[in-house]
Amino acid sequence: MTVLTHHRYGKAGVRLFTVEHRDDRHEIADLALRIALSGDFEQTYLTGDNSGVLPTDSQRNAVYALAAEHGVRSLEEFGLLLARHFLDNDPSVSSAEIHVRQAPWDRLTEQHSFVKLRDECRFTTVQATRERWSVISGVDGLSLLNSTNSEFRGFRKDVYTTLAETSDRILATHAVAGWRYAGLEHPWDKNFAQARNALMNAFTATYSRSLQQTLYEMGQAVLHACGDVDAVRLRLRNLHHLPAPLAPLGVQPPAGRQIFVATDQPYGLIEGSVARAGAQHLQVGGEPW
Amino acid sequence: MTVLTHHRYGKAGVRLFTVEHRDDRHEIADLALRIALSGDFEQTYLTGDNSGVLPTDSQRNAVYALAAEHGVRSLEEFGLLLARHFLDNDPSVSSAEIHVRQAPWDRLTEQHSFVKLRDECRFTTVQATRERWSVISGVDGLSLLNSTNSEFRGFRKDVYTTLAETSDRILATHAVAGWRYAGLEHPWDKNFAQARNALMNAFTATYSRSLQQTLYEMGQAVLHACGDVDAVRLRLRNLHHLPAPLAPLGVQPPAGRQIFVATDQPYGLIEGSVARAGAQHLQVGGEPW
Amino acid sequence: MTVLTHHRYGKAGVRLFTVEHRDDRHEIADLALRIALSGDFEQTYLTGDNSGVLPTDSQRNAVYALAAEHGVRSLEEFGLLLARHFLDNDPSVSSAEIHVRQAPWDRLTEQHSFVKLRDECRFTTVQATRERWSVISGVDGLSLLNSTNSEFRGFRKDVYTTLAETSDRILATHAVAGWRYAGLEHPWDKNFAQARNALMNAFTATYSRSLQQTLYEMGQAVLHACGDVDAVRLRLRNLHHLPAPLAPLGVQPPAGRQIFVATDQPYGLIEGSVARAGAQHLQVGGEPW
Amino acid sequence: MTVLTHHRYGKAGVRLFTVEHRDDRHEIADLALRIALSGDFEQTYLTGDNSGVLPTDSQRNAVYALAAEHGVRSLEEFGLLLARHFLDNDPSVSSAEIHVRQAPWDRLTEQHSFVKLRDECRFTTVQATRERWSVISGVDGLSLLNSTNSEFRGFRKDVYTTLAETSDRILATHAVAGWRYAGLEHPWDKNFAQARNALMNAFTATYSRSLQQTLYEMGQAVLHACGDVDAVRLRLRNLHHLPAPLAPLGVQPPAGRQIFVATDQPYGLIEGSVARAGAQHLQVGGEPW
Repeated sequence: MTVLTHHRYGKAGVRLFTVEHRDDRHEIADLALRIALSGDFEQTYLTGDNSGVLPTDSQRNAVYALAAEHGVRSLEEFGLLLARHFLDNDPSVSSAEIHVRQAPWDRLTEQHSFVKLRDECRFTTVQATRERWSVISGVDGLSLLNSTNSEFRGFRKDVYTTLAETSDRILATHAVAGWRYAGLEHPWDKNFAQARNALMNAFTATYSRSLQQTLYEMGQAVLHACGDVDAVRLRLRNLHHLPAPLAPLGVQPPAGRQIFVATDQPYGLIEGSVARAGAQHLQVGGEPW
Repeated sequence: MTVLTHHRYGKAGVRLFTVEHRDDRHEIADLALRIALSGDFEQTYLTGDNSGVLPTDSQRNAVYALAAEHGVRSLEEFGLLLARHFLDNDPSVSSAEIHVRQAPWDRLTEQHSFVKLRDECRFTTVQATRERWSVISGVDGLSLLNSTNSEFRGFRKDVYTTLAETSDRILATHAVAGWRYAGLEHPWDKNFAQARNALMNAFTATYSRSLQQTLYEMGQAVLHACGDVDAVRLRLRNLHHLPAPLAPLGVQPPAGRQIFVATDQPYGLIEGSVARAGAQHLQVGGEPW
Repeated sequence: MTVLTHHRYGKAGVRLFTVEHRDDRHEIADLALRIALSGDFEQTYLTGDNSGVLPTDSQRNAVYALAAEHGVRSLEEFGLLLARHFLDNDPSVSSAEIHVRQAPWDRLTEQHSFVKLRDECRFTTVQATRERWSVISGVDGLSLLNSTNSEFRGFRKDVYTTLAETSDRILATHAVAGWRYAGLEHPWDKNFAQARNALMNAFTATYSRSLQQTLYEMGQAVLHACGDVDAVRLRLRNLHHLPAPLAPLGVQPPAGRQIFVATDQPYGLIEGSVARAGAQHLQVGGEPW
Repeated sequence: MTVLTHHRYGKAGVRLFTVEHRDDRHEIADLALRIALSGDFEQTYLTGDNSGVLPTDSQRNAVYALAAEHGVRSLEEFGLLLARHFLDNDPSVSSAEIHVRQAPWDRLTEQHSFVKLRDECRFTTVQATRERWSVISGVDGLSLLNSTNSEFRGFRKDVYTTLAETSDRILATHAVAGWRYAGLEHPWDKNFAQARNALMNAFTATYSRSLQQTLYEMGQAVLHACGDVDAVRLRLRNLHHLPAPLAPLGVQPPAGRQIFVATDQPYGLIEGSVARAGAQHLQVGGEPW
């Protein structure tokens, strides 16, 4: 005998672009959303009875309709609005997860011209049941590099260790950082800017003995900068830059010049969570916090 | 005060390609691996003391060395071998996760020629502590399509529902399927072939009232085909094919011809787990099983 | 003073999916199209006068309408149909280029179930003026590998050469192959199958002294297999597989086992055209034939 | 009888990362290069005789060696240096093409910290024979958006035209722009900055009646800003933003708020070249200039 143990469904890849005219100055938001609803939906799995299933197409329409009525003030507020909408209007829904990603358009003029410079994106994940709500926000794809002030020495050696110790290396990372808010009403955009700055400043200012150490400094910096945040989760790719094989070529760069080969594969992957002492340790979205 | 609550580290994007000569016939394996170790590694985060940290470079070397000594008989066996290696040789390690993906080369000749047809890949994730082991295997990117025998009717309507009911639509999916093995010694390759066939056959044979229903049939089919498996997890993209807007163009296809617009965004996302009654409900890799 | 020297415009990323019912057996086509029109369209560039500009939206509609009326018998026939449509219906158009790519769905059942093998796609480019037509078809992303029967020796050495000669290496390639047809009426699908087989057979059967040599054999094989083709153009990535650095690890594989590191970057890139003696040497689509 | 009509070979995906210490301030360059050499290399295609073939591995080594000896002052200078190297040192080479792409790291501190804005990259293509040299530089992936000041009206209608005229739409583009230099010695970095600014300013300042018109203004602006440039080539994706289907949902946004659906497919593709009157019309790299 088989049983259905877990299930959820929803719409992903929902694109929303909004313009708000404030006299001559336009504000834009360029979002992609993913909605996942859990609840009393077993029958469609087990028998194909769809009578309790709101089409994912209607979920997409809700995005447009709520954006039209309320506007998008911030990712977090809009995510909360959507989660509330599904919980309030569909008694079958016991849990809603709204994931929102924002394309990073920067202003070119004071009026209505924009440039999208960055691959980096801001995101938020709202998870809500009727009893418990959480908001996790973050940045995906923040690429940072220090061309010095990084070493890696004194590590454990085993039978397969061939890596040389180094007291000066390039430290480069592709970072995903998420932070969990302690409540549901905060100045979201201000917190985002503060957290992102804290991440960059900590990376820049840390003399690094390991990327793990830098990770912990980055997490602490977000907690220090954002009183509204009680835990930070970081996932840092260690993007290796290998010294180019110059010796066999019979060439040597002059003092002050270094030649490296940047590589994509393999890469180190360093993960960690930093929390205020006493903050709840939770599973949120399959990740330990 | 801040604390480090969760952490792990390792090497990802490790590429391994092996050739085994069986007389004139060559067997190849083209793998990408990700290793993540948890354990007593706080000091490098907190103080930069690396004395307990085995470099991720040594982890990569272990992949090559163990492949050289033991060969790659199957993804699962090689993943178990690696997990054991890290647990046995490093007392600081309390938990090891090995994720392996295999590029799908097919044989062109009986000797030593191959073609890589598919984007689809086979994967396995081994998770191990000294007490508890789990092996989850699966296929990522299985794309399936039925051009009929699919309907979507009788669903719940809310104030934003505009979707028309349909009794004949295209059902197309990009599937990720994983199955959990009940133990650690099985004919892995045979199980993989049986599970993949079961997924395809169930998709093909099901007259679908919803993609959820098809998901449940696919999960059941894997459990039926593979006695060694006790739970199946599926994540199905519903790839929408919209009728092309022909009416305003004043054209109508002849009977038996249908014209659609395939779309990538947005897409439905249907998730579910199917387990044998009585199988353990676990969190594995952040996912509920 | 500035002048507009070259220009063209059109719609790209047009998705078309067709189903033809032949009793219980369905035939499907899953296409992406790009249309580019050249002609008497200067005014919109110079002054914004759009009176001669057919919207790209109407070009997309033409794809749907012509598919509805005529069906898609083959990529080439449908590309020719579209090119003719634009030349016949818009006197401003002097030249039309239609590029069509087909997703490779394979049949799972005799009726209406399919599986997509996605790494490789068939394409065609039709270029047409009122006087001159050309059809180039091909395959993009054919990945082939021989685990032996490849050497690279006797090459020129310069001051920076450090590569060792080898008499046994892995030869792996990601191939783009295009072939030019001598006329406009051919059994297109049969030619495609023959050309693709010829490419695979020549790659497999050639004892390779360089990927260049293999390229020439592949080109010749297409000309031999397809009497309707008068020139072949190949672009082969040489995907390097480096011996894994086992010696410093103190391990050695048993006889008959080889351990490599597959790499994506850098890669060799070998290009060449093979034509029947006497075939026209043309520029087609910016490429020399 | 078959003949080899065109051929070239080289190394692609060559990664180079350089650091120059100017006291405490570090300058970095993060490049990916592609080298293609043409010349007297038929024998390896026809017979597998490699005696005239410099390995692509040696070409990669030349990149490292020349970077070590000369540094990377600008993409263009380094591309010219490499082209000269191959022409000077290998009499078999008749033509060399060097394509260089630069990852856009921005300075975070005055010393040695950087952040990568990754969607956009600067590139250069140097093409050289012993008689004729050309340098084309540009930017790939400049994404620009005006939320108003764009219309599309007065266009030609055919039988399939359903597009409504609009006097206010979003104009968004993903631009690839290349410009050809009139000679081989210029202040390359200054020209790049001026050209990029000119592109952005022209896009911003143009009241657009068609994306074609905007293209011509952008091309003119580069010629106006950069006296060293004699031709500009532009390839603009027209990224459509469709009004969200609000009417069937019974909602209407307040005045000053607009709701769109951003789409990736299909997209318009507008191409054009703008040159100084009297500049040479050439084929460079398969593109008409």
